Amino acid sequence: MTKDGQKDVIKRLNITSGHLKKIIEMVKDERYCVDVLQQTEAVKGSLKKVEEIILDSHLHTCVVPSFKGNKSEKSIKELVEVFKRR
Amino acid sequence: MTKDGQKDVIKRLNITSGHLKKIIEMVKDERYCVDVLQQTEAVKGSLKKVEEIILDSHLHTCVVPSFKGNKSEKSIKELVEVFKRR
Amino acid sequence: MTKDGQKDVIKRLNITSGHLKKIIEMVKDERYCVDVLQQTEAVKGSLKKVEEIILDSHLHTCVVPSFKGNKSEKSIKELVEVFKRR
Amino acid sequence: MTKDGQKDVIKRLNITSGHLKKIIEMVKDERYCVDVLQQTEAVKGSLKKVEEIILDSHLHTCVVPSFKGNKSEKSIKELVEVFKRR
Repeated sequence: MTKDGQKDVIKRLNITSGHLKKIIEMVKDERYCVDVLQQTEAVKGSLKKVEEIILDSHLHTCVVPSFKGNKSEKSIKELVEVFKRR
Repeated sequence: MTKDGQKDVIKRLNITSGHLKKIIEMVKDERYCVDVLQQTEAVKGSLKKVEEIILDSHLHTCVVPSFKGNKSEKSIKELVEVFKRR
Repeated sequence: MTKDGQKDVIKRLNITSGHLKKIIEMVKDERYCVDVLQQTEAVKGSLKKVEEIILDSHLHTCVVPSFKGNKSEKSIKELVEVFKRR
Repeated sequence: MTKDGQKDVIKRLNITSGHLKKIIEMVKDERYCVDVLQQTEAVKGSLKKVEEIILDSHLHTCVVPSFKGNKSEKSIKELVEVFKRR
């Protein structure tokens, strides 16, 4: 990952981690289910954004050199797998 | 939420929270992007499972009484909204 | 399904079907992959919208009577299953 | 796209198109909503599979040459965009 990408991802994951802790408190406080579901969706949205940053960084730092170095097959397989799981 | 549902959800969210912390460590340790992406997908999967439990509980404890009490319109709107965000 | 819901769904599915046919033409014409992918995403988006209309209709015409008639368990299971597949 | 990829994609999209037509018949026949929803999910699943084949083909025929030719920036942006929409 690029240094900037890594910093951004760590910052975002820390915020997401705090968000998740607040959701646990919501459930303990017996808050309305629909409100809790809205928050879990938001956390999933934050993780999706993080994944996009990681992918961008991965393409720049790993895939470009791999494709140039004629070792593209492994990288392609991994990218399709990442896309499949999404 | 039902008491059992609440207990299950809290337990699962605590595990997910621990999982997310480990991902932050992975990023700090500059682990391979594709491995990190696999873990963020797993966390999203855990959250989806939690959402299913919350929905099940919500249907039992909130929606059934609401539909019986002729106050179905608000509950339906909320359910469609929850489905839409998914 | 409600009559209005049914009409709306059929209309939307016919449009989606036409959209899909155009995508097949795009692939035959060897159009740029990224443009094709944008269109398949759009079709999936149209189907998601259709599903929301069907769910809304299902809640009104099937689930409300089922919950009132104390036959809620089967309907709840089905709803959670629908949500799970989403 | 590769020739094999193109053939496979057209074949799959034709099957998906037939599947969608059957869903329209289901809705006209007032079939049970939950069964219709299961079929729309299946169509979305088929489209996701088609997208994976297109992406695989795109990486081989477009992205590898683009990365080798030092024109990676545009391709990376497009890939992240494709991933984002997913």
